[in-house]
Amino acid sequence: MRNVGLKISYDGTRYAGWQIQKNAKTVQGVMQDALSMILKGGGKLKASGRTDTGVHAVGQIATFETQSRMTQGQFMMALNSLLPGDIRILDVFAAPIDFHPRYSAKKRWYRYIISNTPVLVPFFRNYSLWVNRDINIPLMNEYCKKIIGTHDFTSFATMTEDDKPQRCVFKCCFIKRNDFIIFDIAAGSFLRKMVRTIVGSFLEFEKNGRMPESVSEILNAKNRSRAGKTAQSCGLYLMKVFY
Amino acid sequence: MRNVGLKISYDGTRYAGWQIQKNAKTVQGVMQDALSMILKGGGKLKASGRTDTGVHAVGQIATFETQSRMTQGQFMMALNSLLPGDIRILDVFAAPIDFHPRYSAKKRWYRYIISNTPVLVPFFRNYSLWVNRDINIPLMNEYCKKIIGTHDFTSFATMTEDDKPQRCVFKCCFIKRNDFIIFDIAAGSFLRKMVRTIVGSFLEFEKNGRMPESVSEILNAKNRSRAGKTAQSCGLYLMKVFY
Repeated sequence: MRNVGLKISYDGTRYAGWQIQKNAKTVQGVMQDALSMILKGGGKLKASGRTDTGVHAVGQIATFETQSRMTQGQFMMALNSLLPGDIRILDVFAAPIDFHPRYSAKKRWYRYIISNTPVLVPFFRNYSLWVNRDINIPLMNEYCKKIIGTHDFTSFATMTEDDKPQRCVFKCCFIKRNDFIIFDIAAGSFLRKMVRTIVGSFLEFEKNGRMPESVSEILNAKNRSRAGKTAQSCGLYLMKVFY
Repeated sequence: MRNVGLKISYDGTRYAGWQIQKNAKTVQGVMQDALSMILKGGGKLKASGRTDTGVHAVGQIATFETQSRMTQGQFMMALNSLLPGDIRILDVFAAPIDFHPRYSAKKRWYRYIISNTPVLVPFFRNYSLWVNRDINIPLMNEYCKKIIGTHDFTSFATMTEDDKPQRCVFKCCFIKRNDFIIFDIAAGSFLRKMVRTIVGSFLEFEKNGRMPESVSEILNAKNRSRAGKTAQSCGLYLMKVFY
């Protein structure tokens, strides 16, 4: 038995996220169908994590087990010829048999892109959040400093019953690049909607001129209602998974 | 009577081009509907030129006549709130009453974007032509030199009976920028499918290692069948119209 690894990029616009669902088109569903055609069944796909409806991926990692003798290049060609253009296999690699894209991962890097222009640029409408006001980037980065390290992120996520709320954020910052504001965040793993709730909240805090200390207070409150709105999914990208 | 000018950007992916048609969604059709709601009829839109199905615009210029007393800012806000996100009004300006966006134009600048990556990047699939081989940019620019100036472009366009085939190309070049190859071309005006036929043909010529002189020969032949395929519309952008 081989464990075959895939590096995948997808435009999440048309999909109800990664994870397979009965009555919705998902990335995993479409990929599983393509894989089944190649392997004549079997080969269940596992990924580094779910992505929500409309969220994009630049470097999602998935694996499947197979006894097929196809080469990595053949898998890549076969999958890319069967998949729609909004899902592309960037790389196929041999993974150790005990490699699990989710449990073996040490770190995930997400990016959130804000279009910061007076008028929405039509080409970026599905690929960024449009904000037309000036944003105080140094203040946003003061907020960021308050969430770096290990914290209980209950206030900044949608919790399910069995989640442990502690997460370790390694890196977190906003930078301005031409007409974009780019938010990069890396953590061991993330809670549901955590990145988007951080971005949505920080934008509200900045607009209301709140002090950086209020981020710490909200973390300590462990209460989702203390933070702000969850930002649109179309600005979010799973960039890279580190093993 | 006022002549109101609009600078428009649109993502052409969902549209059968600019010009209004009976059984297809077009940019002009959608904009005319929005304008009719604001003006209660009238105000026929004129543009600098048609764009084909799937072609994008960064700076299309259009005008309409009206007796309305709405300010430019009010037109901009009203139109952008009625229009879908893939059509945006970037600017509203007062145009002289004898200004015609097509006949007053002195020069048009079009851009064609090629994604030059080993695997198609899903986010660029509707916004560029994907070419995965190495392209000899200096050779492409030698081809360009042969079409600068006034020539009969019959070989590089889809002619209709009443077209005059002479066009004056002011500027024309390819540059490599990261993973993109960008083709910029400026001319007084263009024949139908002229930019895309030039790009598609030059890519074929480069692949087949043809000499720059063959571009001149094909121009002189005045025969569309001597040139190459018309490149996909999704890579083409109307950038700016000069008056």
